[in-house]
Amino acid sequence: MILDSILKPSDIKSFSIDQLETLCSELRSEIIRLVTQNGGHLGSNLGAIELIVAIYYVFDIETDKFLFDVGHQAYAHKLLSGRRKLMENLRRSGGASGFPDPFESKYDYFISGHASNTLSAALGIAKARDLKHEDFKVISILGDGSLSGGMVYEAMNNIAKTPNFIVILNDNQMSISKSVGAMRSYLSKLLATRSGLSFRKIFSNLLSSFPSKFSGKLENFIKNIISAIRGGTIFEEFGFQYIGPIDGHNLRNLIKIFRNVRDIANYKPVLIHTVTQKGKGYIPAENDNTNLHGVDNSLGEKYSNVFGKKIVELAAKDEKIVCITAAMKNGTGLNEFAKKFPDRFFDVGIAEEHAVTFAAGLAKEGLKPYVCIYSTFLQRAFDQIFHDVVLQNLPVRFIIDKAGFPGSDGKTHAGIYDVSMLQNFSNFIIMAPSSKYELENMLEFSVNQKRPLAIRFPKSEVSNFSSDYKFDSKFRIINEGIKNLIISFGDVFNIITEAVNISKTNPTIIDAGFIQPFDFESFYYYASKHNKIIIIEEGIWGGCSNIILEKLLSDNKIDVVSKIRFLNIEKNFVNHMSRSEQINNSSISAINLAKILLN
Amino acid sequence: MILDSILKPSDIKSFSIDQLETLCSELRSEIIRLVTQNGGHLGSNLGAIELIVAIYYVFDIETDKFLFDVGHQAYAHKLLSGRRKLMENLRRSGGASGFPDPFESKYDYFISGHASNTLSAALGIAKARDLKHEDFKVISILGDGSLSGGMVYEAMNNIAKTPNFIVILNDNQMSISKSVGAMRSYLSKLLATRSGLSFRKIFSNLLSSFPSKFSGKLENFIKNIISAIRGGTIFEEFGFQYIGPIDGHNLRNLIKIFRNVRDIANYKPVLIHTVTQKGKGYIPAENDNTNLHGVDNSLGEKYSNVFGKKIVELAAKDEKIVCITAAMKNGTGLNEFAKKFPDRFFDVGIAEEHAVTFAAGLAKEGLKPYVCIYSTFLQRAFDQIFHDVVLQNLPVRFIIDKAGFPGSDGKTHAGIYDVSMLQNFSNFIIMAPSSKYELENMLEFSVNQKRPLAIRFPKSEVSNFSSDYKFDSKFRIINEGIKNLIISFGDVFNIITEAVNISKTNPTIIDAGFIQPFDFESFYYYASKHNKIIIIEEGIWGGCSNIILEKLLSDNKIDVVSKIRFLNIEKNFVNHMSRSEQINNSSISAINLAKILLN
Repeated sequence: MILDSILKPSDIKSFSIDQLETLCSELRSEIIRLVTQNGGHLGSNLGAIELIVAIYYVFDIETDKFLFDVGHQAYAHKLLSGRRKLMENLRRSGGASGFPDPFESKYDYFISGHASNTLSAALGIAKARDLKHEDFKVISILGDGSLSGGMVYEAMNNIAKTPNFIVILNDNQMSISKSVGAMRSYLSKLLATRSGLSFRKIFSNLLSSFPSKFSGKLENFIKNIISAIRGGTIFEEFGFQYIGPIDGHNLRNLIKIFRNVRDIANYKPVLIHTVTQKGKGYIPAENDNTNLHGVDNSLGEKYSNVFGKKIVELAAKDEKIVCITAAMKNGTGLNEFAKKFPDRFFDVGIAEEHAVTFAAGLAKEGLKPYVCIYSTFLQRAFDQIFHDVVLQNLPVRFIIDKAGFPGSDGKTHAGIYDVSMLQNFSNFIIMAPSSKYELENMLEFSVNQKRPLAIRFPKSEVSNFSSDYKFDSKFRIINEGIKNLIISFGDVFNIITEAVNISKTNPTIIDAGFIQPFDFESFYYYASKHNKIIIIEEGIWGGCSNIILEKLLSDNKIDVVSKIRFLNIEKNFVNHMSRSEQINNSSISAINLAKILLN
Repeated sequence: MILDSILKPSDIKSFSIDQLETLCSELRSEIIRLVTQNGGHLGSNLGAIELIVAIYYVFDIETDKFLFDVGHQAYAHKLLSGRRKLMENLRRSGGASGFPDPFESKYDYFISGHASNTLSAALGIAKARDLKHEDFKVISILGDGSLSGGMVYEAMNNIAKTPNFIVILNDNQMSISKSVGAMRSYLSKLLATRSGLSFRKIFSNLLSSFPSKFSGKLENFIKNIISAIRGGTIFEEFGFQYIGPIDGHNLRNLIKIFRNVRDIANYKPVLIHTVTQKGKGYIPAENDNTNLHGVDNSLGEKYSNVFGKKIVELAAKDEKIVCITAAMKNGTGLNEFAKKFPDRFFDVGIAEEHAVTFAAGLAKEGLKPYVCIYSTFLQRAFDQIFHDVVLQNLPVRFIIDKAGFPGSDGKTHAGIYDVSMLQNFSNFIIMAPSSKYELENMLEFSVNQKRPLAIRFPKSEVSNFSSDYKFDSKFRIINEGIKNLIISFGDVFNIITEAVNISKTNPTIIDAGFIQPFDFESFYYYASKHNKIIIIEEGIWGGCSNIILEKLLSDNKIDVVSKIRFLNIEKNFVNHMSRSEQINNSSISAINLAKILLN
């Protein structure tokens, strides 16, 4: 393979165009092989190969700074920058991250797991460069999905006149779910109206209706009018030189254009609108667009699926139920809902802030909005939760998916802060289901609540155990045992069962379900009957512990505090590996729990 | 006064235009009087009077929904909607809030203290209306400053085709500080090119160069070209009908245009670009634009001022120091810095998310960025702090102003969540100065740190006490006493002194300074020597308490826990009144502290 001959990133600079084209096709095969083997993002990575190879060829990968937004299109870049071995274990323990990570390689210049952040970072880098009188280019590959996030506009509002600031818009004509919104329509309009249009082509008929002796004069006249009036693209209004749209898979042409851009960029920021095909070169991936984003080979029913089915059932009975997501339709299990209730389904694009405040507006009018979002992306909307939802006590329901350990997505996607965020607000109901049935019960319960609430669950298969109990906000006793009391939030029963087996103890086991309001009455009762209280939550310290300790200290229940051991996720960053490895390496492992039970 | 005759909002519908103009001038006098008396936002409120009166006159204030973005332009609206009595005590305890508040009046339809949220809320309201087949208009008054916030674009990306959705852009040609950015230039360009332009005016010379028999045909021809090519305003690209710019003080014309809009809006969203003058009608306010935003009559040196002076001194010695703010230049004390170091000063507009990630980019290149921001607005950037700063351990310095009780700004501006947010991240240094000198010391210290850090201080005058001590991250002993140990973060010594006087006790008093890392070594030493430990912080439960309790429980120091009383701000919303009233009504009051000292 020609790929084998690349020892350092700049080696490809000596390649011929033919060799580069061979390289692209080798990269394509490698990526397909690696993703088939390890899981990961296939479509977006196949779509970005020629862009990345052309950048490596034209720009100076050792001195220019090269950023991705978002990072799940960077595999070819990783393969070209000395990480082929790491890529064999892509997204696995010890292998390469699925996203750019500066701790993995100096060629990953900036972290990139959450969308729409890169232009801001790139601008900081460019302004610092100019202040320090240094000379390099800052090149960002920006997915079209990232254009739905407001941060991009905050950055664009500040970029004008920044030299050597190059944005390559990788427009694969979809975002994570179906692309949505005015910006998507706008990009499509640019594709339709700017591709190879010449002035003569458009106006030849009109021009021919004038006497020929006027037509030259007229042509110039009209050209002047056009340049005076034509608004320019939105990107031009923000101060960019706009180039495109161009074919993002035509390597020869990309190289030619990037070379020109290298010069133009000395004077002003440039945005190159490239059109790519998600999954390019891999027939199954080209044809089935919706399943390309993250390849996931796991079987079994997940919490997302249970939510997806149940919300359809509830919505059929209550027409006030509406669902909102921010480009996570598939991931949060909303496919069926979107099909059955298209008028009541809102995918707002990668725009978490808008999603939350939009839901607050819907709730204000008496609808029952469900905001379906991953824990890690909910962080984008902390202020909107406070200002637009909590302060007005509006009953927005948050379905927080992928809460807890992130598995192979790694540290940028750790869903561990949501409870810590939400516990700041005492009017917020916070729940974590322990099983399929409890999630269903919590959803039933959520329909008629009059204040904000959240249901959080992990990216995992459901537990199916026992459905025959009355659901309320009180403790549910799983086992009446002795000495040790285990209080759990969410689906951690595999861990508990294993720990009980290892330790051969007989603890009392309680499924608390509600993090807030917490059932302190039952808690005090059971606390008094046990020597040790172990409280387990798949989240960072400062979630349930905050709620429980505030009350215990306020009630002066030091005897109870003295019995408690909180098992939480440590305040370290969560590296990519399987969820079970992450759990086993943490305080909430069965081994650790068993030790405490025996201690 | 004609204002006295208005008993309900719709009463002005029967007024003549002359009466309406008199009403505007009365409202102007009232607002000047009320702000002179109570403080508040003068300029923006004077600028919006005619817009509000015209809306009341043309639309149906009882059924249409009327929102502000941001809310500090709503005084005329409050005076017209039955709140003249409340307005006498504007921003004071028991009086009207300075911002729209649905708990104050049903005519304040949605809360509005943080900018750029309103189009999202308005869209939720409009979509709910359409789903419920109801019939009303949703009217938002949007300040031009709000256009620098990314949320607005997230909303605009989703608004297209929504009927009866009216946005009145109140373009007073500045935002909170000087307006910045490409969007401002763009609005100015619209003002310059679209004001009263007629086709004939622009092209009359050109047309006259053609034979007259062609000129009619040519005129139509060119008109067709223009409409085909003209890109439209950015707002049109997002699907709005754009109208304007129009004079926002010409009441007669506003009424005429609003009436037309009422009809157009049945088919599509409309944006009316109105041009207003901040401080209109009040000469001091018209002339001195920078001081119009919030009128504040307090004297004395504030923490902001101390920061402002010190950062100039430090920056003179270290050219790597740069300052970033998000439309809070004056408020955070950066006027002098901006003047002395214009190249190293970045006001990014109301764009907190961008501000933080931009600073991360600057830090990546080895500069020393200071992000100067109010605590409440920092909430907008929680995810950027996590993803772009903390995960990469970049030394971005956060100067968190107005941390603690918000005073007359009230609940939307409570600066009480910042420590709770930041304590999630163990690599974050969090400091709170107790005096002018400690702030200066902390700033000196901050210059060469290699990880993220924050210095938080309140919106208050500084304490000046004792400068002669060695500053480090260890406890600073203010008084060696007996029995009671008081550990304080930040400037709460007035409270402590008063409590000591009331209680006639002699507690040991410690200025901890560092919330993280917390000086546990000294803490354990002093804890062992005292019966009771009182820990005071001007922030919500879950800040310092989280850091301290995590360690104590992990070290199994239950004896220490049993001695502790945390004094924090309760998890209630903080109503507007003076800061000292807020403090006196809370757990951190001198009276409460005295009680605990005596208990």
